[in-house]
Amino acid sequence: MAQQHLDPTDSTAGPSPTGDALAGYLRDQATEFLRALRLHRETGGGPPGGSEESVDAARALRRSVRRISGSLHTFRPLLDSDWSESLRPELAWLSGTLTMEHAYGARLERLLLALHRLSGATVFPAQAAGTGAERLPAAPAVAGPSGQVPALERAQLTVGAAKAGALLERQLTLARTRAHSTALQALGSSRFHAVADKIAVLASEVPLTPTAPGTDLRPLAAAAEERLADAVAALPLVVAGSPYNAEALIHGLSPDPAPHPQDAPWHQVRLLLRLHRYALEAQKGGTGPVDVRLLTAGQALDRHRDASEAAAAAASAARTPRIAPATAYALGVLHADQRHEVEAARFAFQQAWQKQTVGTP
Amino acid sequence: MAQQHLDPTDSTAGPSPTGDALAGYLRDQATEFLRALRLHRETGGGPPGGSEESVDAARALRRSVRRISGSLHTFRPLLDSDWSESLRPELAWLSGTLTMEHAYGARLERLLLALHRLSGATVFPAQAAGTGAERLPAAPAVAGPSGQVPALERAQLTVGAAKAGALLERQLTLARTRAHSTALQALGSSRFHAVADKIAVLASEVPLTPTAPGTDLRPLAAAAEERLADAVAALPLVVAGSPYNAEALIHGLSPDPAPHPQDAPWHQVRLLLRLHRYALEAQKGGTGPVDVRLLTAGQALDRHRDASEAAAAAASAARTPRIAPATAYALGVLHADQRHEVEAARFAFQQAWQKQTVGTP
Repeated sequence: MAQQHLDPTDSTAGPSPTGDALAGYLRDQATEFLRALRLHRETGGGPPGGSEESVDAARALRRSVRRISGSLHTFRPLLDSDWSESLRPELAWLSGTLTMEHAYGARLERLLLALHRLSGATVFPAQAAGTGAERLPAAPAVAGPSGQVPALERAQLTVGAAKAGALLERQLTLARTRAHSTALQALGSSRFHAVADKIAVLASEVPLTPTAPGTDLRPLAAAAEERLADAVAALPLVVAGSPYNAEALIHGLSPDPAPHPQDAPWHQVRLLLRLHRYALEAQKGGTGPVDVRLLTAGQALDRHRDASEAAAAAASAARTPRIAPATAYALGVLHADQRHEVEAARFAFQQAWQKQTVGTP
Repeated sequence: MAQQHLDPTDSTAGPSPTGDALAGYLRDQATEFLRALRLHRETGGGPPGGSEESVDAARALRRSVRRISGSLHTFRPLLDSDWSESLRPELAWLSGTLTMEHAYGARLERLLLALHRLSGATVFPAQAAGTGAERLPAAPAVAGPSGQVPALERAQLTVGAAKAGALLERQLTLARTRAHSTALQALGSSRFHAVADKIAVLASEVPLTPTAPGTDLRPLAAAAEERLADAVAALPLVVAGSPYNAEALIHGLSPDPAPHPQDAPWHQVRLLLRLHRYALEAQKGGTGPVDVRLLTAGQALDRHRDASEAAAAAASAARTPRIAPATAYALGVLHADQRHEVEAARFAFQQAWQKQTVGTP
């Protein structure tokens, strides 16, 4: 896969990317972080969800933090170790904190859209890509502030579906509100200010090791790619590539409290694929064409993760005491639907991955 | 498709099958009916399900009745019209009566196997083919009397799945017992004796029209094939051939009391495919190789029908008053699982059908 990026004997690749390219990439990401932070302070701090600008700013923050964090991991030997070892856990904390509010909002949107799809209702998704709505060929997608839960016609739902939707809305909105407060507190904390100061320094001065500026990035990038390839090789891709294999729901009613250990290797590949993409970006200085096939594979794994967590949220809501049987039934249908989304996402990943490896030696 | 059976200009086909071949085929089926009836009387009349022999006898009875009924339909112009018009509704009644007991038993087996699969439990299906168990690669299939519900370990199920299984078992066993009594009553009725007498006559003397013995069967068989081709052309095969299209569950929570009109055209194709197969059999005098591709397509449609009815049974059980939320949740998961089986069966049909038409002009 994508050997052309890595093969040192490839004469078409131009001059080798070195630590200097990495420094440029990190400076760019740090600058982007500072810009997003400024925008977030100007627009954010409002209610959960917030304006389109604050949602965009939060996304840009998460994006740059992930890239800095990933580059520190992949290119660790080229960076001052005291500096990077102290920054990495702080970036992980920040990334986790910033992600939660968005995740709860997206999960609620995904589940409400699915409930409407399952009710045969017409849905106008605010954000068609990456949600269950992408599978509704007849549903017109209208533009809207992304990250917003679309206005849905409750009247089109059966009692069970409506009650299930209301229950999920209550539970996930509460979780989102809490995550929003936590994120606001975090962004005001001295811990955050220390991280932001470090990133501000990074925007002008990257603490490379003395030999790093001239060191070829490709062996470390190749190691990241190899870790990805090994993790993909361990996935059950033959099963995943056979449509309707019914694997994803096989523990749908399992008495096991953690019924989906089968998802973990896919989540791991998702993270490794992301590290590989960032390593490619660092080598190209953040410019150059995006590898559409990697992007497609990554989107499939995002969908896998989202559907997996949405299915778990439906199952968890069904354990709420004193719910009506009709509500529980709708949540059962919803859970199974999302587990089939998990299976569909694995199939989509297998297809994208297969395309990617075709034609390479 | 399969033009080689029908093209009158095909010089490799040997002598044209005529009404004489049809008469031979009907005599054979009538003889088979009488044999199966004798066997059924010797072994049957016991409890629902019964012994392996009585299950086999009932299957042979249904098989021959369907073939006689189908041939009367397809080749109606070649048969004495008073005779065939009086016999056809009686055969439809008999076929319907004989089918119900088997259908309820198979539905219960399918649902219990699915519940165990969804619980991650190991299942030992008595009858792996044609049930959800065929998708369990790890499950060892052991031989057992077909048509029997396998002994399942209730202890491996969660409370919800166990209660759902018990509820379905109660409801479908009751329905099966009633169907068994109805079938026994029917087989003892004067209405049945009149049908059996007519079939006994048919075993030696087929009431062809005066010109039928020398009439080519192929135009009527071609008309049956054309009705099938038209019905298949009206199916949404492009959608069905795209894996994970999520169409089958789109009304899974619909307030519509008859939420699955989308299944009807597929059920219709199933019947027309069967008529086409019987017409091919009649032309070959019931001998010759079975068309594996037609058989595969037919099995996919059988699975479609079975999953569709199993999904409806799960939804219906969930409307039982005063069930626990956990039971309703398990039934919701089960319903969605069977609707995905419906979708998988459509995909399988599309694949089989595509293969069939490849290479023919």
